[in-house]
Amino acid sequence: MSPHLLSVDDLSLDAVEHLFTIARRMEPIARRRKITRVLEGAVLGNLFFEASTRTRMSFHAAFSRLGGSVCDTTGFTFSSMAKGESLYDTSRVMAGYVDAIVLRHPDQGSVAEFSRAINVPVINGGDGPGEHPSQALLDLYTIRQEFERLGKSLAGAHLLLTGDLRYGRTVHSLMRLLSLHPPLRITLVAPPGLEMPGELVDLVASRGHRIESRESLETHFEPVDVVYTTRIQKERFTEEMQERFHNLSDEFRVNRAFLDRHCPPETIVMHPLPRDSRPGANDLDVDLNGDPRLAIFRQTDNGIPVRMAIFAWLMGVDHLIEQSMRDVGWQVPERLSPDDASFVTL
Amino acid sequence: MSPHLLSVDDLSLDAVEHLFTIARRMEPIARRRKITRVLEGAVLGNLFFEASTRTRMSFHAAFSRLGGSVCDTTGFTFSSMAKGESLYDTSRVMAGYVDAIVLRHPDQGSVAEFSRAINVPVINGGDGPGEHPSQALLDLYTIRQEFERLGKSLAGAHLLLTGDLRYGRTVHSLMRLLSLHPPLRITLVAPPGLEMPGELVDLVASRGHRIESRESLETHFEPVDVVYTTRIQKERFTEEMQERFHNLSDEFRVNRAFLDRHCPPETIVMHPLPRDSRPGANDLDVDLNGDPRLAIFRQTDNGIPVRMAIFAWLMGVDHLIEQSMRDVGWQVPERLSPDDASFVTL
Amino acid sequence: MSPHLLSVDDLSLDAVEHLFTIARRMEPIARRRKITRVLEGAVLGNLFFEASTRTRMSFHAAFSRLGGSVCDTTGFTFSSMAKGESLYDTSRVMAGYVDAIVLRHPDQGSVAEFSRAINVPVINGGDGPGEHPSQALLDLYTIRQEFERLGKSLAGAHLLLTGDLRYGRTVHSLMRLLSLHPPLRITLVAPPGLEMPGELVDLVASRGHRIESRESLETHFEPVDVVYTTRIQKERFTEEMQERFHNLSDEFRVNRAFLDRHCPPETIVMHPLPRDSRPGANDLDVDLNGDPRLAIFRQTDNGIPVRMAIFAWLMGVDHLIEQSMRDVGWQVPERLSPDDASFVTL
Repeated sequence: MSPHLLSVDDLSLDAVEHLFTIARRMEPIARRRKITRVLEGAVLGNLFFEASTRTRMSFHAAFSRLGGSVCDTTGFTFSSMAKGESLYDTSRVMAGYVDAIVLRHPDQGSVAEFSRAINVPVINGGDGPGEHPSQALLDLYTIRQEFERLGKSLAGAHLLLTGDLRYGRTVHSLMRLLSLHPPLRITLVAPPGLEMPGELVDLVASRGHRIESRESLETHFEPVDVVYTTRIQKERFTEEMQERFHNLSDEFRVNRAFLDRHCPPETIVMHPLPRDSRPGANDLDVDLNGDPRLAIFRQTDNGIPVRMAIFAWLMGVDHLIEQSMRDVGWQVPERLSPDDASFVTL
Repeated sequence: MSPHLLSVDDLSLDAVEHLFTIARRMEPIARRRKITRVLEGAVLGNLFFEASTRTRMSFHAAFSRLGGSVCDTTGFTFSSMAKGESLYDTSRVMAGYVDAIVLRHPDQGSVAEFSRAINVPVINGGDGPGEHPSQALLDLYTIRQEFERLGKSLAGAHLLLTGDLRYGRTVHSLMRLLSLHPPLRITLVAPPGLEMPGELVDLVASRGHRIESRESLETHFEPVDVVYTTRIQKERFTEEMQERFHNLSDEFRVNRAFLDRHCPPETIVMHPLPRDSRPGANDLDVDLNGDPRLAIFRQTDNGIPVRMAIFAWLMGVDHLIEQSMRDVGWQVPERLSPDDASFVTL
Repeated sequence: MSPHLLSVDDLSLDAVEHLFTIARRMEPIARRRKITRVLEGAVLGNLFFEASTRTRMSFHAAFSRLGGSVCDTTGFTFSSMAKGESLYDTSRVMAGYVDAIVLRHPDQGSVAEFSRAINVPVINGGDGPGEHPSQALLDLYTIRQEFERLGKSLAGAHLLLTGDLRYGRTVHSLMRLLSLHPPLRITLVAPPGLEMPGELVDLVASRGHRIESRESLETHFEPVDVVYTTRIQKERFTEEMQERFHNLSDEFRVNRAFLDRHCPPETIVMHPLPRDSRPGANDLDVDLNGDPRLAIFRQTDNGIPVRMAIFAWLMGVDHLIEQSMRDVGWQVPERLSPDDASFVTL
């Protein structure tokens, strides 16, 4: 039992393994085959000082599925903070109302500051350019689950990370979590100016992983097990880059043609979502919709069991999950999309 | 068990009868005499891309009374959709978080598009000028319940529909549902330019109903069983109409004087609400408040059992309701308003 | 069982005693040692027509801890009220959806108007300059609980009320509640122009209490048992006052130096919160953080059992609390802050 989850750096590989063991136990509940009441009477303060409907709903649903109640707050500030209330006062007041807090805030470090004075578990739901540990955990959980489904081992696996590797905080946190594992092979593909920060590359390399960098997807790759894509925002480009990458969509676009050229059928394609589907958005292509290699929806589905595991762990009920499960009375019909294959079978 | 409720056109008379049988079973719960836990562990995504506090709260309360948890979202867009996420991606992500979705959206057809890729039940909570099927169902349910209370038969009944019959979507959906029944007599009263669309009149007439149109309420009517009113928004009037209907409030105003002149004591007066009570608003008159013929609050009350029935039906627990009911521990006191007569007696 | 809680003037001392007896029974639940399901199946409409995150969350958490479900609404108006719906219609519609209503509204008297037509319990969550009875009750409850903890009697106690005593509605309601008790000694300290209204002083004095007024905190005081502070908003000052109180922060600032000079170790310092912690804000000083005399967080914590008691009382389940309690399965760790002393021990 740990008081807070603020950063992936707080987690040892043992802690991650424990969390994933709990998450796997949560699957029957996340898949609506079982229900539990293990957090009955508990109240979550789901505090979103910055809008993020998806993340807010994922935490909300996860806490609800454990039997707890959720109190949401959205909007740029607390009304009381607009009146000059300190984060210290706000957090201490909230600690008297609720039993756990998810906090998303635009300012890096604010979640840590918020959690300092209180002992009610606080989960960092994203603090600007800082951390978003539950996203990194569900990404890693997805890789682990997909490898198990495909009968593959993570040891020595080849991961391709592409897109905006400089400003994408999810890919940084994922790198840190991956670095805890036995040696992997990681290929980084980003346009100049958007590369992975050097100190992070050095850290991961120093832990025995083999890292290679490329400037384009239009090159030869060794067979790839995981393609992790993040959107390149053109606004981030300098004029010089705009000129050099006149054909950006071809050189950095992950689509069906790319996959058919470089990736065996067991490759999985991930994305932290949302994906920009507007024409010319230069994001992960919609022509992969329906392709079983597209794991992005299985990935977002995994947010539920992983966030349930985080709550159960921080609130000290992880050991009670299995004995608390009962059959569900209602039933959501099986899914339609082909990408749901792993979701509907238990 | 049907996957979605998008339009009243999806419903046969048999389906409507089945829904109303379930709704009647829900009455003791809706009236706070019994409770159930039949949807325990289920999570509703109550997604309102357009504000409608009343409808959102009605769905929220209905799902809660079945024992489920509700996650609300309000606001013009999802934050992720502002980043270019497609409705396809948003809906597929939501399907992994929640067990049923109510969606209100300003664009006609968007709810159907949202539901296409997923198998989690989606209920259309209103898509702009399109459909709002749960409103039409609660309107019809109200007519049926009131007739039963008054010991009258719906066969051959005379309904007067008045107000803005052109742009009022609720009155269109109600017409479609009414048309499934044995022959009725329907009188339509609207100012020129705001008449019921011709093709809808033709459809209903082709199903054997007797339809008559009038240009004013200041005329002779055969005794009327139901008066269904919708507000005429003066902004919709052309200059010519403004001149012609200089005395609009007298010619189209449903008030106590109108009722006393044309309607027997068993007539019921309905309105989809909200009703504009500001002076000169030309809406259903407040001088009927307290008159037992005014059924508008019994009508809105009926939203709860009808929406409970929709959820139970779509989620396949309709057959479990009766055995799941238990006595309530707390008790809301009996109502004060005379119009609540039917509400408090079980 | 009473229909509504609109004003502290509705409460006799007997009613207050009864509420506090229930609140004390709620403590094990508020402190997360026990849970109850006594309001299972009940739905609260938590209607905030004016933003107040703290108050909304406190009511939300309190109702949730009793086993009920909560439907929140925030924003300046109901979408339906923008369309001209009367408060009468809105309240009657809500009464058909939910089992209890908390209403916060910027207009004085609006909550009473809202509650007039309905029998569903309505709690005034603050109506502009009007009333906020649950705040006054939790303030009084805090004084009573702190005196009990310190082994002191309220009879003859000395309370110092300071800050903006003219516009602070919480301090007015607290005065009214205090006036129901056996004779107290109350010292009022406010700058000219912000004094307690004369008729309220007269009312309290007429009930046998000894009231004294001062113009500055920089004077001699008899030992004080309770210091209740409210923020002075400089915007409320006339130019003349600005000149006269050039050194406002010294003359009206409650801080550690003031306490050490005038208050024995058993004094408690209260504040309705939020407290403005910005430099120069002239509010209760942060240099008291961690001082056991600072009761402001115990005070806000008390909002939970007091609001639970209000709900249980209005909904007629106050006699069922004790038999309904069960052990909690999860556990929030003990608190960190020294001010939490009374919170963590049962």
